Amino acid sequence: MIQPVPIRKNDLWFTEYQTDNMRLGLRVTSILKNIKTSYQQLLVVETEQYGKALILDGILMLADQYEFTYHEMMVHLLLCAHPQPKRVLVVGGGDGGCVREITKHDIVEEIFLVDIDEEVIKASKEFFPAVSIGFEDRRVNVFPMDALQFIKERHDSFDVIIVDSTDPVEFAVGLFEASFYCDVFRALRKEGMVIAQTESPFTNKELLSHTYRQIASVFPRADLCWGAMPVYPSGSWTYTIGSKGPDPHIVRRAPSGTTCYYSPEIHQAAFVLPPFVQELLKENAES
Amino acid sequence: MIQPVPIRKNDLWFTEYQTDNMRLGLRVTSILKNIKTSYQQLLVVETEQYGKALILDGILMLADQYEFTYHEMMVHLLLCAHPQPKRVLVVGGGDGGCVREITKHDIVEEIFLVDIDEEVIKASKEFFPAVSIGFEDRRVNVFPMDALQFIKERHDSFDVIIVDSTDPVEFAVGLFEASFYCDVFRALRKEGMVIAQTESPFTNKELLSHTYRQIASVFPRADLCWGAMPVYPSGSWTYTIGSKGPDPHIVRRAPSGTTCYYSPEIHQAAFVLPPFVQELLKENAES
Repeated sequence: MIQPVPIRKNDLWFTEYQTDNMRLGLRVTSILKNIKTSYQQLLVVETEQYGKALILDGILMLADQYEFTYHEMMVHLLLCAHPQPKRVLVVGGGDGGCVREITKHDIVEEIFLVDIDEEVIKASKEFFPAVSIGFEDRRVNVFPMDALQFIKERHDSFDVIIVDSTDPVEFAVGLFEASFYCDVFRALRKEGMVIAQTESPFTNKELLSHTYRQIASVFPRADLCWGAMPVYPSGSWTYTIGSKGPDPHIVRRAPSGTTCYYSPEIHQAAFVLPPFVQELLKENAES
Repeated sequence: MIQPVPIRKNDLWFTEYQTDNMRLGLRVTSILKNIKTSYQQLLVVETEQYGKALILDGILMLADQYEFTYHEMMVHLLLCAHPQPKRVLVVGGGDGGCVREITKHDIVEEIFLVDIDEEVIKASKEFFPAVSIGFEDRRVNVFPMDALQFIKERHDSFDVIIVDSTDPVEFAVGLFEASFYCDVFRALRKEGMVIAQTESPFTNKELLSHTYRQIASVFPRADLCWGAMPVYPSGSWTYTIGSKGPDPHIVRRAPSGTTCYYSPEIHQAAFVLPPFVQELLKENAES
């Protein structure tokens, strides 16, 4: 008797090259979208580990299961600390995760989102309804255009700016430079504050130091904070805050609705840096 | 003219299956040791990303560059909080990283390490001199034997016990059960405290809840704390403390010498849990 060949399951993996020497593999059950937009390769896959995932130019941007850690930190650290955050701008962030968190603050009157790639917004609305839900809020205005240009043209216009950028590749390189933060400074009102994602303290030390220095050279006050982000390289992520005045440690309000990662206590703990991260900022100050 | 075939570099990777659906790849430049001990497969490789790495049964235990985050947390959280940590026991931890950190506390009089696999200790002394250096301290006593047996035979003997176990596979399964923690309780003196690594809050939720519950069922006081650990799955790691009395939040002393991750402020921040982790402990209490 001939033994039948056993049926095998698909063994399909998405691989992210997090550095030249480290890669993350996630088992994929289906490929939901894979297109070349005007700006980048956009891939949406269903993963076993983290649910649906959005990948731009090979970099994992968003995964359903733990996007909250990143989006809650990017938004609530500033919106709970700014005295009067009436007008808020998100740079990048086309998935809508930051916008969703901003809508948890009743004090906010107008939300602006500027993302160069409209296809990201479309893909998020199609595949990540729990993330893109914020776009339904009547306070939201979307500008599909180059953020560098958008910011340059606005003066004294926003209370809070959230720089939810991709890694510094191609069109996003400018978002990590002092000239951009000079424009951000001008676009902010009195008491304005900016927060930017500044990558991992373990695998992106140079970029972290560099961007912190750029922000500290433009704003009278710069603070680094950090938190867990399991789907990004090394699992820890940093956020740099530039402020025209307000102390970001002071928690003035809470978001309405539930949060899974953020709390007033996490807000304080986020500013507690291990000695090796403090050293990164010092080395930097000396160079 | 025939074009010469270009010379290619080795493209050698170590792959850790962190879960069935997620894997980490690290580029390897050389394989330094690869043996089957009486208990497990022991592999030492040189990685480009994190330096030398120790791998037991396919699980990444230790990497030169960031072992400090884990070892500093495992040791200083308790040794800075216990009123009089004179006799300290490490369960597992054959690499010596915990022992090295314990030797930074002059108050400690005797250090005991019990690891079932003497080959781990030998490999660490050979390839990880900066980790195994603690073994040179005259206060250290090494017992190469089964920790479950060792603990069972000791009563009222230690002030602090540090459970630096592997994942709960084969011989290490017992280290995550209540019966083990009953023995630990008996082996501890009055005011005794234990700390155990309880895996990732993102990718090992069930084990975390389970082990926390076991410890909480045995000790009058149980506390969960957490920190960054970039080379372990998800990049965040939890530590569960059981105490016969002392409050682990109270910092009574500092380690001598430098620390890269631990500080008195990090000590406090380690107990600040995001809402989703607090939920894990609640669900657990109800089950």
